[in-house]
Amino acid sequence: MKRRDFFKNGLLTTLGLGALGASPALATTIKRKGLAKNIIFLVSDGMSSGTLNMADILMRHKYGKPSTWIDLYEKNTVKRGLMDTASANSFVTDSAAAGSAWGGGMRVRNGALNIGPNGEKPVPILQKFKSMGKAVGCVTTVQITHATPASFCVNNGSRNAMPEIAEDYLKLRFDVMLGGGANYFSPEKREDQRDLFEAYRQTGFDLVRNKAEMLNAKGDKPMMGVFADEGLPYAIDRNTDPSLSQSTPSLPEMTQKAIDIMSKNPQGFVLQVEGGKVDWAAHGNDGPALLYDQVDFDEAVKIAMAFALNNDDTLVIITTDHGNSNPGLFYSGQANKNFERLYETKASNEWILNQINPDFSLDMVRELFVEYQQIPLKTEEAEAILASYQVGADGLYNPANLPFHQLAGIQSRYTSIQWAGTNHSADYVELAMYGPGSEKMNGFVKNYELHNFMLEACGAKRELFV
Amino acid sequence: MKRRDFFKNGLLTTLGLGALGASPALATTIKRKGLAKNIIFLVSDGMSSGTLNMADILMRHKYGKPSTWIDLYEKNTVKRGLMDTASANSFVTDSAAAGSAWGGGMRVRNGALNIGPNGEKPVPILQKFKSMGKAVGCVTTVQITHATPASFCVNNGSRNAMPEIAEDYLKLRFDVMLGGGANYFSPEKREDQRDLFEAYRQTGFDLVRNKAEMLNAKGDKPMMGVFADEGLPYAIDRNTDPSLSQSTPSLPEMTQKAIDIMSKNPQGFVLQVEGGKVDWAAHGNDGPALLYDQVDFDEAVKIAMAFALNNDDTLVIITTDHGNSNPGLFYSGQANKNFERLYETKASNEWILNQINPDFSLDMVRELFVEYQQIPLKTEEAEAILASYQVGADGLYNPANLPFHQLAGIQSRYTSIQWAGTNHSADYVELAMYGPGSEKMNGFVKNYELHNFMLEACGAKRELFV
Repeated sequence: MKRRDFFKNGLLTTLGLGALGASPALATTIKRKGLAKNIIFLVSDGMSSGTLNMADILMRHKYGKPSTWIDLYEKNTVKRGLMDTASANSFVTDSAAAGSAWGGGMRVRNGALNIGPNGEKPVPILQKFKSMGKAVGCVTTVQITHATPASFCVNNGSRNAMPEIAEDYLKLRFDVMLGGGANYFSPEKREDQRDLFEAYRQTGFDLVRNKAEMLNAKGDKPMMGVFADEGLPYAIDRNTDPSLSQSTPSLPEMTQKAIDIMSKNPQGFVLQVEGGKVDWAAHGNDGPALLYDQVDFDEAVKIAMAFALNNDDTLVIITTDHGNSNPGLFYSGQANKNFERLYETKASNEWILNQINPDFSLDMVRELFVEYQQIPLKTEEAEAILASYQVGADGLYNPANLPFHQLAGIQSRYTSIQWAGTNHSADYVELAMYGPGSEKMNGFVKNYELHNFMLEACGAKRELFV
Repeated sequence: MKRRDFFKNGLLTTLGLGALGASPALATTIKRKGLAKNIIFLVSDGMSSGTLNMADILMRHKYGKPSTWIDLYEKNTVKRGLMDTASANSFVTDSAAAGSAWGGGMRVRNGALNIGPNGEKPVPILQKFKSMGKAVGCVTTVQITHATPASFCVNNGSRNAMPEIAEDYLKLRFDVMLGGGANYFSPEKREDQRDLFEAYRQTGFDLVRNKAEMLNAKGDKPMMGVFADEGLPYAIDRNTDPSLSQSTPSLPEMTQKAIDIMSKNPQGFVLQVEGGKVDWAAHGNDGPALLYDQVDFDEAVKIAMAFALNNDDTLVIITTDHGNSNPGLFYSGQANKNFERLYETKASNEWILNQINPDFSLDMVRELFVEYQQIPLKTEEAEAILASYQVGADGLYNPANLPFHQLAGIQSRYTSIQWAGTNHSADYVELAMYGPGSEKMNGFVKNYELHNFMLEACGAKRELFV
């Protein structure tokens, strides 16, 4: 037990869950040589190559240790490959089509969830694994109804059908679903005014709405956890705000809880873990948000690997669904000093931009950036940012239309992070595997191949294959 | 011999060199189990992740076959890792410091060639391998005196000392040196008016100045090949221009010739192959140039692998020295159609921009882009480009100051390629290996570690290690 204790982050002990684990006798009933009993599938959504390496540089220099992901490469713990991420209709996928490739085993058109280009409706992979008796679930930092978790769970012609997907989950009764998206469950926000939260409660779910409730849940019922109206806060903002830290679980905390609960199933479990806001930060060219959400994702990888290193029947897959904005730490005489500013950053661009309003003075803008991002804006830079907050002809300004990209352009002078765009790219992406089945992974993989790959790794019957 | 014949590109047969190969008896004298007799080290200079994948997408769809590099991953032929590329003074390296890390085994400051931060002068790796009796050399599409080849050959405080490096090569008498850079050898261009070409001739070199001379050279003397004043033409421009195709060798042709000559050495050989203009194209955000120079580099990889597959004592290393501009194929509804334009492209941006002059009409600009890049510029786009050619107040316009980045911005609307900058990035880069020694490669490597790695792979004496 020494090794397990070493790797666990303490939750097990805190919660006294250790004693509830499956007995060794039960746990080995389905253990066959070389087969995976469990799969933990981790997705840092929209992670370009530069995102991974900048987070690693940050961790090495700020914390004095490499990222778990790169450390797994350096120590040859995992197998490494590249993955092509195209969708049915484009070299450049969205998260719904990318997730469906894994979840349904076929390429679909961008925007679709396991509905093929000819109307095919492949059974989503977590439904298959549930039919095999496994515990199944998803944890994410975005809405639990969002494209990536949904792509492992449901069939829907559109990823936008989040209110419907929230209902689907009620019927599916998966074991652990944790993320954001209260707006798709709440009677005040749903068009049909249905109170899905109440429906979950009444049908025997453990409905948890904050970190304490999540941590205290026994895990003897299917669990639905919804911790934010839409996405969860960025890790950097949660870390800076004590009340957010108390109320909102982090991705590693959700991951640990899901593993603790689902690993009690003697038939094993399949868990998808998504660092969903890495993608959002890339869309917003929000460097501080991007790096610290990637660091949080990396902590989730560490938790998954700690479990797998102690449970050799666990396949861990670590990847992303597509590139996004192809950021990089770029050359200049000040590149190191600039990048080091991010070691002390206390807020995402999103948070900062949301603090500013048309009544702000230039000095207030400048103080905000010095205080939270160690960035001494020049007067003209502060002016350029503040100009976006001017009240319009209608006497209003639009707080949803924040100057993300203008700020990113200015910020690059201070952080040396630059971006190639604000959307997805066709880059081939990182794919790392550990555990039973990983030995069969090729060095270059098409995303849809992972569906059957996972089923085969678990010894599923052929009729479940696409 | 069947397999070899299959892979060879025909030069061997054409030149009748097959008969000159080392006899099997000689060739095996230094063959020890598990040791590399030969190393082919291939560098696509400044290749961001997106460059590799866009070239692969292009090749799959235009030619119906994957790139050799990705195919090696897909078939599990090579070991794959990531490499950290930092220099002694920055997270973001230049090519001199990156090459010196490999060539001298230590990190140096940007701009230096094997001169350490404390004045260290590590012996460059090709000098070491020459001392072991191996044939050594470099082929490149940029100046043979440029940073990457020079970093394997010489010590110099500055990569800019190309005239001096051209003299160093005279003394080093390496076996095969092929590339551009006549300006650093020619009495008309050198400040000291020294005729280095003549000096090479008089001291027993085979001096070759065009493709035919290179192909016809017997290889019984040290060979210096210089095929352009500075860098060689971009592959796309060479392919389109019959006279350039005839006069200028491609990177794969130079690679094949170097291997043909150096593989006759019974003690083996070490060859550096650089796709140097991939980096230049990235600096210029020149998509057509970038992709087709990467395709040319890929052909050189194919030639190296063909040799290694038939000579199991050959270690092949395929990598890049750093990212550059982090390009990507970006999302839009037209991404595929846009990218497909590049399948028919006939000219680099550099070539096109050099055709335009202030006397051009808007129609002439537009016709040029339609004819050579299948891009139907809008009037305002043609105007924006032509505006850069206005004659200045001094009555002149500067042909060296072409609107590369303005064009790249316009072009992205037609090709869906976008760029994060115009300089190097700190991205961790691809590292692939095949052959003896590759089994010892870790999944994550620091660039300077490759120096001793190569020496160890060849069984060099410990005193040669850094």
